[in-house]
Amino acid sequence: MKKIRAAIVGYGNIGKYVLEALEVAPDFEVAGVIRRNPNDIPAELKPYTVTDSITKLEGVDVAILATPTRQVEHYAKEILAMGINTVDSFDIHTQIADLRRTLDEVAKAHNTVAVISAGWDPGSDSIVRALLEAIVPKGITYTNFGPGMSMGHTVAVKAIEGVKAALSMTIPLGTGVHRRMVYIEVKEGYDFAQVAAAIKADDYFAHDETHVIQVESVDALKDMGHGVNLVRKGVSGKTQNQLIEFDMKINNPALTAQILVAVARASFKQQPGAYTMIELPVIDMLYGDRESLIRRLV
Amino acid sequence: MKKIRAAIVGYGNIGKYVLEALEVAPDFEVAGVIRRNPNDIPAELKPYTVTDSITKLEGVDVAILATPTRQVEHYAKEILAMGINTVDSFDIHTQIADLRRTLDEVAKAHNTVAVISAGWDPGSDSIVRALLEAIVPKGITYTNFGPGMSMGHTVAVKAIEGVKAALSMTIPLGTGVHRRMVYIEVKEGYDFAQVAAAIKADDYFAHDETHVIQVESVDALKDMGHGVNLVRKGVSGKTQNQLIEFDMKINNPALTAQILVAVARASFKQQPGAYTMIELPVIDMLYGDRESLIRRLV
Repeated sequence: MKKIRAAIVGYGNIGKYVLEALEVAPDFEVAGVIRRNPNDIPAELKPYTVTDSITKLEGVDVAILATPTRQVEHYAKEILAMGINTVDSFDIHTQIADLRRTLDEVAKAHNTVAVISAGWDPGSDSIVRALLEAIVPKGITYTNFGPGMSMGHTVAVKAIEGVKAALSMTIPLGTGVHRRMVYIEVKEGYDFAQVAAAIKADDYFAHDETHVIQVESVDALKDMGHGVNLVRKGVSGKTQNQLIEFDMKINNPALTAQILVAVARASFKQQPGAYTMIELPVIDMLYGDRESLIRRLV
Repeated sequence: MKKIRAAIVGYGNIGKYVLEALEVAPDFEVAGVIRRNPNDIPAELKPYTVTDSITKLEGVDVAILATPTRQVEHYAKEILAMGINTVDSFDIHTQIADLRRTLDEVAKAHNTVAVISAGWDPGSDSIVRALLEAIVPKGITYTNFGPGMSMGHTVAVKAIEGVKAALSMTIPLGTGVHRRMVYIEVKEGYDFAQVAAAIKADDYFAHDETHVIQVESVDALKDMGHGVNLVRKGVSGKTQNQLIEFDMKINNPALTAQILVAVARASFKQQPGAYTMIELPVIDMLYGDRESLIRRLV
């Protein structure tokens, strides 16, 4: 069997876990790793080509974009135009439809496939939300996140004057309402109370119950566990009170990385264009013979 | 907008709920109802054509098969050959791949689409199982059913000599192990202890913890609520202890019927052939503009 040759673009947290997921996937091989500084080669990258441009790698079938979300569009356009499929976990919910439109055009023009916003939310949670609405069309779905670290909120805290280090934890209170637990180290010469007030006034936090706590070491609190509790109560046909719940407690970057690998696999079974995960048949994300999968999973 | 004209084939429990689901679906209209005795017309069928053969209905786009599972193949072949899509909730797990193969050939020959085994298990649970395996490839999934009535086990009890009426409830004990709570009325002249022993010795019950209880009225105990708790603990990439759980408490025939309507909708977005639900993009099951769905659900 010819293996799928995947390049990892970006080698931060997600990129590291993508490498692990590729190493254990029976149908993939690592074509190489793209990072800004290709001379920074940790032990686990020693067996692989590490370079600063995907043009320097040979025979790449798919590029797994593990870059910051705002760089996804740039890289995806460039790589799709080279005839290489791309997958990403672009996570700005309000811009997903636009990114899909942009990349759909590029992908179709170059006979390639892009799978976008493939993480756990957006991503596998999106599939669950869509499925629940298909089978229980009327009603409300609540997506409750956490407890876990919010990347976006943590970055927002770090931008506030006087903050030396920060961690913003998302705590689910139910019905889609969240508490923000913000742990900070304060820079010398700054007053904790003032910094805390500035955080609470920031638009990221002003609408939620927010607690700011001063700690000696933010690093000592960090854990990459996360979770989601997705609930829907609604109506099938004319029948009320259909109750469904989806619950996860997971290592955040490990799950995102595994999902990126699964959709990289699926990308080769789609017509040219850009897709979100709810547009892919779930079976396409799985390794193995189609009929055996059907016998085992249906 | 031209509505999808759906015929309901079979008007038992599922058929009744399919009618309700079609009546509230904005993109469907009822083409008619097929039943053995077309003169048996309850109040809710008064507005519709009720007949004993689908050949007597006009402009049918899709037939929703609400027949007993063993009649699905016969009806599907016949109706697909008429150029009409079919959907069913065929539920004999070991025969699904074969049915798919048989109907795939017929559907392709007549440019139609069959969606098979579309209920909640097999069906929406299958999508969840496939998704969990895609995102957590190593590990064990347990599907725990109930508490709820098992149709198959109830029929098996009724076949045993001396049983006047029966209800077999499936009780989940975790890790895919189930208890059978069997409630029976005993025919005159039979000894309860002997009947109970015969039930416990039956192959349907011999391998499970089974309790047989004599009651005055089985009918007084019947409730169409059912449930599932589907759990997976496993590995994403090289990361252990990924914990996921899917839980439902639902009206059984109402959910099955709604799923049949959702896949009937999806059938018009597939190439000719036969499909299980894990082969359909979830978005195809939803009513509404594709880009709006992506904006709202992804």
